Amino acid sequence: MEKLYENFECLALSGGVGGAKLVLGLSKILSAEQLTVVANTGDDFKHLGLNISPDLDTIMYTLANLNNAELGWGQMGETWQFLQALDRLDEETWFKIGDRDLATHIVRTLKLDYGLTLSQVTEDLCRSLGVKHSVIPMTNDRVGTVVHTDTGESIPFQEYFVRDRCNPKVRNFDFQGIKTAFPSPGFLKSLNSPKLRLIIICPSNPFVSIDPILQVSGVLDRIVERRIPVVAISPIVGGQALKGPAAKMMRELGKTPSASTVAEHYLTVYGDILTGFIIDEEDRILESNLSGMGLQTTVTNTVMITLQDRINLAHESLRFANGFKI
Amino acid sequence: MEKLYENFECLALSGGVGGAKLVLGLSKILSAEQLTVVANTGDDFKHLGLNISPDLDTIMYTLANLNNAELGWGQMGETWQFLQALDRLDEETWFKIGDRDLATHIVRTLKLDYGLTLSQVTEDLCRSLGVKHSVIPMTNDRVGTVVHTDTGESIPFQEYFVRDRCNPKVRNFDFQGIKTAFPSPGFLKSLNSPKLRLIIICPSNPFVSIDPILQVSGVLDRIVERRIPVVAISPIVGGQALKGPAAKMMRELGKTPSASTVAEHYLTVYGDILTGFIIDEEDRILESNLSGMGLQTTVTNTVMITLQDRINLAHESLRFANGFKI
Repeated sequence: MEKLYENFECLALSGGVGGAKLVLGLSKILSAEQLTVVANTGDDFKHLGLNISPDLDTIMYTLANLNNAELGWGQMGETWQFLQALDRLDEETWFKIGDRDLATHIVRTLKLDYGLTLSQVTEDLCRSLGVKHSVIPMTNDRVGTVVHTDTGESIPFQEYFVRDRCNPKVRNFDFQGIKTAFPSPGFLKSLNSPKLRLIIICPSNPFVSIDPILQVSGVLDRIVERRIPVVAISPIVGGQALKGPAAKMMRELGKTPSASTVAEHYLTVYGDILTGFIIDEEDRILESNLSGMGLQTTVTNTVMITLQDRINLAHESLRFANGFKI
Repeated sequence: MEKLYENFECLALSGGVGGAKLVLGLSKILSAEQLTVVANTGDDFKHLGLNISPDLDTIMYTLANLNNAELGWGQMGETWQFLQALDRLDEETWFKIGDRDLATHIVRTLKLDYGLTLSQVTEDLCRSLGVKHSVIPMTNDRVGTVVHTDTGESIPFQEYFVRDRCNPKVRNFDFQGIKTAFPSPGFLKSLNSPKLRLIIICPSNPFVSIDPILQVSGVLDRIVERRIPVVAISPIVGGQALKGPAAKMMRELGKTPSASTVAEHYLTVYGDILTGFIIDEEDRILESNLSGMGLQTTVTNTVMITLQDRINLAHESLRFANGFKI
């Protein structure tokens, strides 16, 4: 298998939980030199004075085998003593920071305040946790996803996502700061590497996880210039989001929740960015529809329950992409 | 009892554990209007980006009945998940912040960064924890106790106290910033109150807990001007410090560890500041010596094991002071 991927680099663009599952699968196949993971940081925010990077942490904890699989955030075996004490101090506790998770935010904040970039801090954290693959923020600049709702209210992403449990109806999204945000050095390095052969768009929320990454200044142009396969995996299976509000968002945006809508979104917003699209067996019926959009499609199991499911989907993604001659 | 203390205000100057015990006793006798507690903040420091005020917290937790009596710091029922995760991230863990205690430091740091003073933050924290008596920092300005050692090294207090476990031999102390530090508004208010009838110097370390308080700009002059009883309780019993490095420090400073040395220190450094001195029954033999210094002395049990011990010593201190006609 490894021979197949000699002299090969792959760039994976990912949000949190769903993306992190595929990233884990990829990390079991590709070496640290072969795989670069770029995470969305539009969800990052300052809370209780702490710099919190949910997607970076989810990916990092997943690769370190420290992730809390039940919750989808924080570390395995989290306890909530801090949060209870915080509640006692009459502070907001809607954002559930576990006692172990807290160490990450404190160290990140400390190092950022010292003047390190988010990339440098993430590299340090990964090294300490024994994560060998590069996990890289999309940018070292501040980008803040804002959710505009049907009531005219604009809500910072974590307040929408966690505090309001995705209840408000979305109208559109705004990535504040995105136009002046530069790709992080590691992201640029990967995008510019002569060995880069494949970009994988993980099964993450297209609107709030992948869009910010693709909209970082210059990223889309560079991807298009590279003329290498770009393969996306649908986060929507059977019209449902496996995790998170993607399907709900689609309905609120006036679209039918389906894998086709995901593909359509990428094609509409980013032109012919996608080379291939991977959908679940349950969505086999959409194949002709996707062909009609000019997309090469493959059908496989995309629901990742076990580690083997993750590895299988990673293999399938690599095999599929390997078939493209560009 | 309360009648005796009508139209009466008492100001207690305190360091951490030992002082907090007496403060708790006083709080069971005196109302919130009658008792003001001023804490040393020379031990305060910034650690992991957090503003930590050990003496304020010990007093606050003690009055809230939340203190960890076994450790002498942090909250009851502390867990150490944060610290373990921090260790995993290769950060310094010598300063043992418990998961519950951490909430206090995070809230304090957040509010200070918002621009609140340490007094305001402490008031908020006390209100949330149901502490009715005023617990007040000696100053809202930054003061940092530095320990100068016999090797010529200068060590910030918490590093000496916690990291180095008081092992270095002390030569003298320096309270950085003390000359430009103003008393906090609450401290000044108490010092200027017409109802102030008594100042109690708690059984705290004279060198690193009480000296900083007395050396805040203008404090000593105001105390002397007031011509009200100032009663100190010896933290040294039978030549030993009940807690902490006071006796060890005395030896290293070339003095004999004893209650007399405590009194001598206050008289030498601050002139005739003390009106009365309270020593333990074990030290009855020192009475004539203390008389020779011109000090009225009373002998009682100063070793506070039970809550009743704390209340008894508080009563004894108030009774003793009440006997002075100034």
